[in-house]
Amino acid sequence: MSRLPVYLRCLVDLPDGQVTCSSDQLAAIAGVNSAQVRKDLSYLGTHGVRGVGYTITELRAQLRLALGLNKGYSVAIVGAGNLGSALGTYPGFDAWGFRVVAIFDLDPTKVGMKIGDQEVLAITELERAVRRQAVDIGIVAVPAGAAQDVADQLVAAGVRSILNFAPTVLHTPEWVETRRMDVSTELQILTYHLQLGSEAATDM
Amino acid sequence: MSRLPVYLRCLVDLPDGQVTCSSDQLAAIAGVNSAQVRKDLSYLGTHGVRGVGYTITELRAQLRLALGLNKGYSVAIVGAGNLGSALGTYPGFDAWGFRVVAIFDLDPTKVGMKIGDQEVLAITELERAVRRQAVDIGIVAVPAGAAQDVADQLVAAGVRSILNFAPTVLHTPEWVETRRMDVSTELQILTYHLQLGSEAATDM
Repeated sequence: MSRLPVYLRCLVDLPDGQVTCSSDQLAAIAGVNSAQVRKDLSYLGTHGVRGVGYTITELRAQLRLALGLNKGYSVAIVGAGNLGSALGTYPGFDAWGFRVVAIFDLDPTKVGMKIGDQEVLAITELERAVRRQAVDIGIVAVPAGAAQDVADQLVAAGVRSILNFAPTVLHTPEWVETRRMDVSTELQILTYHLQLGSEAATDM
Repeated sequence: MSRLPVYLRCLVDLPDGQVTCSSDQLAAIAGVNSAQVRKDLSYLGTHGVRGVGYTITELRAQLRLALGLNKGYSVAIVGAGNLGSALGTYPGFDAWGFRVVAIFDLDPTKVGMKIGDQEVLAITELERAVRRQAVDIGIVAVPAGAAQDVADQLVAAGVRSILNFAPTVLHTPEWVETRRMDVSTELQILTYHLQLGSEAATDM
């Protein structure tokens, strides 16, 4: 369920020193209603105490367990351009148990370049390196035209989860979970709200 | 409604030459059920024809109108690091009517650097430049520690929509719509599916 990571993120963002949080507080940060929060969390076997809420440390542990974050996951990034470089040095990964174990690029002038603590590998190394490192998640950070080919290579190397930054739909076998980070889509959602706002203003 | 941009994205990704599409096809790409698609689109006044589906050009026009994309929107990026550079040259913006009109950075060594067709401006120029260019959407691409300050400056300059890439929650007035692009959250959703997958495998 895609709200669980959001709840976990909310907990991490709460002020230091806060011990419990209410479903109302979680709901406000997550942008859902509090009944939904209580329902979602009850599936984890977590029930808040009326008038007190949830114990943050306990809820955090249960969310991490449900999300499989206690295990740690290895991530490979394909594409060492600006985006791949930004991802390769993203400070948020460590805290969540994600470790970048390999970065690949097609461009020979980028091979050997250092991003974070990784040296960029040639794309021809992909299958071997991904298998050797037992990569859990592949991140596609290449131009749209190259994305499907990269995804095929990741799948062939045994990757079962792909996060796609290229502005294109990837076709992958059903056992592969693919998600897309699409800046344009996010901007269009903002646009929709901007427009609702100006219509409301016109009505006044 | 945040599914509308997803439907529009699906339409753009359909094979060239396809004239109509069914709610089933949209549902499969968007990851919802077809009844939901029909319901969402009926709010736009668009009803498919049984056995034929929706005319793609018409549906696209109605979605663009509902999303306000016929107007064109100006975007300012704060942060000229790897991420800001990637965003400043993102080829997907133009197609959707988004135009990057300014890029700012705190670091004086980055000021004057060229990203796409923009020269990086000093952050001290932010309020003046944002007002002059009537920026609709501000993108926050700075480290977490600097993000709230940047958001405050954008809001003070009249920006009503913010897309936040920093791994932190921004506090903005209620008239400002803020969305967060969070790579960790997406990875955690993938992780959740990976774990469900391995549990299913264990059950067999």
